Amino acid sequence: MSSQESAPGSTRPGGRTARNTVAVLQATLDELGEHGYGAITVDLVAARSGVHKATVYRRWGGVDGLVRAALDWSADQDWEPTRTGALHTDLLALAETVAQGFTEAPEREVSAAAVAAAFESEAVAGALRRFMADRHRRSAAVVTEAIARGEAPEGTDPEEVVRSAVAPVYYRLLVSREPVSPADLRRTARITADAAAEGAFVPGP
Amino acid sequence: MSSQESAPGSTRPGGRTARNTVAVLQATLDELGEHGYGAITVDLVAARSGVHKATVYRRWGGVDGLVRAALDWSADQDWEPTRTGALHTDLLALAETVAQGFTEAPEREVSAAAVAAAFESEAVAGALRRFMADRHRRSAAVVTEAIARGEAPEGTDPEEVVRSAVAPVYYRLLVSREPVSPADLRRTARITADAAAEGAFVPGP
Repeated sequence: MSSQESAPGSTRPGGRTARNTVAVLQATLDELGEHGYGAITVDLVAARSGVHKATVYRRWGGVDGLVRAALDWSADQDWEPTRTGALHTDLLALAETVAQGFTEAPEREVSAAAVAAAFESEAVAGALRRFMADRHRRSAAVVTEAIARGEAPEGTDPEEVVRSAVAPVYYRLLVSREPVSPADLRRTARITADAAAEGAFVPGP
Repeated sequence: MSSQESAPGSTRPGGRTARNTVAVLQATLDELGEHGYGAITVDLVAARSGVHKATVYRRWGGVDGLVRAALDWSADQDWEPTRTGALHTDLLALAETVAQGFTEAPEREVSAAAVAAAFESEAVAGALRRFMADRHRRSAAVVTEAIARGEAPEGTDPEEVVRSAVAPVYYRLLVSREPVSPADLRRTARITADAAAEGAFVPGP
């Protein structure tokens, strides 16, 4: 906190430090997506962001600190699950978002690289855990609303419903390395919504 | 096929080439598990296995060929899912095996390293795909038997039931980076078995 860059007041949105922070974290995500965790260096991130290397070292410490901060920053971005009015189709939309995030979205390389990097670094694994926990929390809103509409019983664990809806997508894309079809997404959403309606996500005694 | 090592007849079980092959592939898995894909070199595998470096290069070409062959070899090992007499508990046993494979088994580091390495190499991703396809095929037997017992309708896709039973375990351990509790395993097995009984895994028209 003694450097000029991190002095109080200089991190206001639009300030130079804020702009530098965004540039560095975005450059980190870009490097992660394009070349993977193993190829990231502070030099490359500094060059890409236009921020001085010494500043990058001082604020983020090194590659692990950069990747961790970049993932935490990603989690902070605005993101809201789609609302369709029914749990089944809300879960379908959620699974579609995950599938697109790995196959179509501009950030598709980053998504896979972040999961991959977590195997190599405890710091990155922690950042991924926080990122996913944040996504679970935000996504859980569609389940909470479904409970309020009477589509699932009181006591249903909303985040567990979310995990159940997205896990098969991640499994196919990252573990069994198979394509995900629209029928796969529909089946998973249907099974999860039906199980939720039956009270399968109400924790036992 | 022109080298002495790979001449017909010399690869019989118990022969020198067979012993060398096992030594090299086991050394590759050991290196993968202990140090990760990024740290494997032909030199290290050769030294660990006691097989000459030139032989390793000639037969496997390099690190990608070694890791691919080692995963294919793992898939060939005898493995059978546990039979308990009912689909629900067979799926529970399957999910427990997966969870133990990442947390308790001697090969736990290899399991995670293989998934991680697939992000870095198309050849390894292909080997992982084959390995998982083999596990799906073998595990599907418990579902086929359950269909014969009348626990799920004819037309049920057995491998899809398997994916549904194990995906949440992989998701927690490798993506959301959360612990897997016995209650998590029981819930997933119960939801999948119930969905199978309802015909949720019979492909639509």
